[in-house]
Amino acid sequence: MPHWALGRLMNLAEDLAGMTGSMRPLMTSKIIVTMAGDHGVTTEGVSKYPREVTCQMVYNIVNGGAGINALARQAGARVVVVDMGVAADLSDLAKAGKIISRRVAPGTKNIATGPAMSREEALKAVEAGISVALDLGDKADLFGTGEMGIGNTTPSSAVIALLTGASVREVTGRGTGINDEQLEHKIGIIQRAIDINRPDPGDGLDVLSKVGGFEIGGIAGLILGCASLRKPVLIDGLISTAGAMIAQQLCPTAGEFMIAAHRSVEQGHRAALATLGKEPLLDMGMCLGEGTGAALAMNLVDAAVRILTEVATFEEAMVSKADK
Amino acid sequence: MPHWALGRLMNLAEDLAGMTGSMRPLMTSKIIVTMAGDHGVTTEGVSKYPREVTCQMVYNIVNGGAGINALARQAGARVVVVDMGVAADLSDLAKAGKIISRRVAPGTKNIATGPAMSREEALKAVEAGISVALDLGDKADLFGTGEMGIGNTTPSSAVIALLTGASVREVTGRGTGINDEQLEHKIGIIQRAIDINRPDPGDGLDVLSKVGGFEIGGIAGLILGCASLRKPVLIDGLISTAGAMIAQQLCPTAGEFMIAAHRSVEQGHRAALATLGKEPLLDMGMCLGEGTGAALAMNLVDAAVRILTEVATFEEAMVSKADK
Repeated sequence: MPHWALGRLMNLAEDLAGMTGSMRPLMTSKIIVTMAGDHGVTTEGVSKYPREVTCQMVYNIVNGGAGINALARQAGARVVVVDMGVAADLSDLAKAGKIISRRVAPGTKNIATGPAMSREEALKAVEAGISVALDLGDKADLFGTGEMGIGNTTPSSAVIALLTGASVREVTGRGTGINDEQLEHKIGIIQRAIDINRPDPGDGLDVLSKVGGFEIGGIAGLILGCASLRKPVLIDGLISTAGAMIAQQLCPTAGEFMIAAHRSVEQGHRAALATLGKEPLLDMGMCLGEGTGAALAMNLVDAAVRILTEVATFEEAMVSKADK
Repeated sequence: MPHWALGRLMNLAEDLAGMTGSMRPLMTSKIIVTMAGDHGVTTEGVSKYPREVTCQMVYNIVNGGAGINALARQAGARVVVVDMGVAADLSDLAKAGKIISRRVAPGTKNIATGPAMSREEALKAVEAGISVALDLGDKADLFGTGEMGIGNTTPSSAVIALLTGASVREVTGRGTGINDEQLEHKIGIIQRAIDINRPDPGDGLDVLSKVGGFEIGGIAGLILGCASLRKPVLIDGLISTAGAMIAQQLCPTAGEFMIAAHRSVEQGHRAALATLGKEPLLDMGMCLGEGTGAALAMNLVDAAVRILTEVATFEEAMVSKADK
């Protein structure tokens, strides 16, 4: 075809070839890993929904009724839910094999009054994510990140402010739909969390432990695990990108295996993607999380693979060359 | 899920429900209609590729080796090629049922020296497109437009300049990759075509006959046919959008059934989509044509349908309501 006439779909095809070390990569099996965790900062009233929704949505995903289930089915992907630290007892689901349990603690502490977790817990969350990637590595050619955790745009915006150098106001959005007054309150809470905890932006584990979350650490680990397996991983929205920034802080070359799935309407996402140096594939005004953007973008990965493997060259198709 | 958290995917779902008159639309069978035609204006040296490539690419598509074949397979769509006026004998392919023949003439006349076709031929091209939609109507829930025709960005830019009111320079791009000098030449040719032929922008058939093309007329007709069947039709890139503008000029309500698949890098596409009032789903820097953008966007239509039909409400999933 004319040179690079498929534009960014060709860039994606080239990236996939580079990541997998193959001109004919296979992307037949796909998994969205949805990491769930709760957040002590919800006591500060930063979210529109009560904390028990995290647990309820885990059940909804397990039952196949959530947005991520519909979009993963469309993309031909499996959804794997990981309990990284939900503030409810999910042991029945784990025993039944319906979720993976890697719970660090039943929710983080309130970042507005102290660190979210200890440094040991932060390390444990990242290691849990790595282990999930390694455990699932045989079963997936392509990973996508996702999350569920009421209140988790708050720690994510804190992480992104620290790792991009942007102001809290620049990177804080409305989450599931808070109003102007609640947004001002949320910005104040995030600023307080940073002022009280003083995380070191040069130390990803310090940022994670002071103002992060268990699912954010799990996502960072999942990405590191994917990179170690040389498997591409689609990064979903704001929370996943906060995890991706921590992964890249811990291991800069991990960025080579990340594909930015979409641009969320959450306003911190733009700054985070710019610092990661990633141009998102889709810009659909989405902000549902769960891994929905990653699932949608799996279609574009499939398409890029088809372009690499199924299109005849002009020579093969006996098409005349350009005049000049 | 939280209100409109899937953003433009929800808008698309809503549009599909409106077009089909169903809250549970089915989009199981999909067809990309690739309209092929040649252009007398290629004698003016407006394209990087020689005219015989149109015919060669028709064979490549029929043999399954083109970009559109790969992307249509990925999207689960069939590709139907229509000979609207290729300057070569394709009767063997038509007899074998591998293409549909609706040829008006073996290529248009040179628009730089006179009209592309007569008014009767313009009407015949549009009617042919309508008949293709009606003939295929039973076999498709979702249509996509596509085209193949060396030189066809030249008439398309002329059509778009006339129907948007923009200057020729604003809406003329590099097609398959001409250089700066060739671009200046192409702009001059398009301006001359408009100056010599003086089409009436208030008369879509006059615009089509004076500076259009057979495949552009076929696309306009296909869209009108889809609208009459209340079937959604994904509009591909620059050439398809020129056809869509003629369709909308002939029947303003046809726009209700159009979905803009993507934004091409061809610079006239932006102005054309703005005048149509359509926001494209994808922006991948593509300019291959054939229907490739429409095929890629079919995945998003599938996803929107899944959201309409498969996601549990908060009540169904017993998820707690928002606090405020």
